[in-house]
Amino acid sequence: MYRLYHYPLCPFSRTTRLVMTEKSLSFTLTSENFWEKREAFIKMNKSGSVPFLIKKASEEEINDGKNHLLLSGINAIVEYLDEKHENNPIYSGTAEDKAEIRRIVDWVNVKFYNEVVSYILNEKVIIFFKNKDIPDTSILHIAVQNLFVHIDYFGYLLSKRGWIASNKISIADLTLAAHISVLDYLGMINWAKMSSGNKETFREWYRIMKSRPSFRSILQDSVAGFAASNSYRDLDF
Amino acid sequence: MYRLYHYPLCPFSRTTRLVMTEKSLSFTLTSENFWEKREAFIKMNKSGSVPFLIKKASEEEINDGKNHLLLSGINAIVEYLDEKHENNPIYSGTAEDKAEIRRIVDWVNVKFYNEVVSYILNEKVIIFFKNKDIPDTSILHIAVQNLFVHIDYFGYLLSKRGWIASNKISIADLTLAAHISVLDYLGMINWAKMSSGNKETFREWYRIMKSRPSFRSILQDSVAGFAASNSYRDLDF
Repeated sequence: MYRLYHYPLCPFSRTTRLVMTEKSLSFTLTSENFWEKREAFIKMNKSGSVPFLIKKASEEEINDGKNHLLLSGINAIVEYLDEKHENNPIYSGTAEDKAEIRRIVDWVNVKFYNEVVSYILNEKVIIFFKNKDIPDTSILHIAVQNLFVHIDYFGYLLSKRGWIASNKISIADLTLAAHISVLDYLGMINWAKMSSGNKETFREWYRIMKSRPSFRSILQDSVAGFAASNSYRDLDF
Repeated sequence: MYRLYHYPLCPFSRTTRLVMTEKSLSFTLTSENFWEKREAFIKMNKSGSVPFLIKKASEEEINDGKNHLLLSGINAIVEYLDEKHENNPIYSGTAEDKAEIRRIVDWVNVKFYNEVVSYILNEKVIIFFKNKDIPDTSILHIAVQNLFVHIDYFGYLLSKRGWIASNKISIADLTLAAHISVLDYLGMINWAKMSSGNKETFREWYRIMKSRPSFRSILQDSVAGFAASNSYRDLDF
């Protein structure tokens, strides 16, 4: 039995939820506004970040110093879950296949996140909660331009492979879908512009991802102050 | 036979070099000023980032479209090398041990990098090459303050374990030592302040890391425009 501290619009938290659901693990979700640096949270999770995964324990037990599994860091969490729960493997194939899966995961979690998602999350969500400030539209504009370049590359890979890293679904698909779902929630993806070529291939892939049972809980997410976009819960967007 | 495109002051490139040397792999090093976005480099490595690892191929062969292993993304690279070359394993133990190793790796590559190393690299190195500008000392000041907080945590972990993630050397030690070595080269670590408690434990650990044969090549690095600090090549700093 796991407990996952998450934030609904955090793409890394969403990746973790998708992995746990794909593997039929039972877990409790606790929403954590990580930027508030809640004292009891920092005490048990020195990194202060979400997702934070614990196993079979209450906050009290952890702060008593008992030796439970406490995990932060997206790669640490998903690699652990895959090693510990072998059903529906999310890293599979030869060493070269796994290398390609992890290459895409690194691309999405580092490059795509830094060039697109983090700008949008910061301008639209974090700034709002911290200062009740309005977003800087010039930053959002650059992020959306970068988004289209990335989507074209993802569509190119998908057109050659079926799934994003190989001919099987993998952690790379779950990771990318998690990031995309956050942007979609915030209404940052203009799907009407994804109707041809690589971009259409990408849209088709996201339709399939969104229709998976593991996506159901994510599509029910609702964050006060941020209504989901019209396309968000629509499986035929 | 591998070829690694790297940048001498990139901590992720250094991690890769350390792993390859610890595993006695033979490889050729090619230095790449990645921020210049060299056309032939981008053509073969769409991420544009270093480290970039290729196997048995010249740039010409790769641009001819032959199917060689082309890897970017630090986790993709090091996990591949460890899976492919089993000697001197860098992820070992139970699933929980490996989870702790990867937790520290994520901490160093994401949190420590974003709060300390990237500021320093950007202000001291990248800005210099791009604009011949001078560093913003207020940013450097914040980065150094953050550095001390992290070092205290690393020293705390080391005092309990021997190595940073467990009782054996792992990729977590190589990763952290690579990042520290970049800061040390740039003279950003005041070792005189590391003479007691957790900080002394940390300094002792770095002395041991620096004395490993795999560190020799890194200690010989020299980057035009940036002389190594006095402590850098001194094993008894």
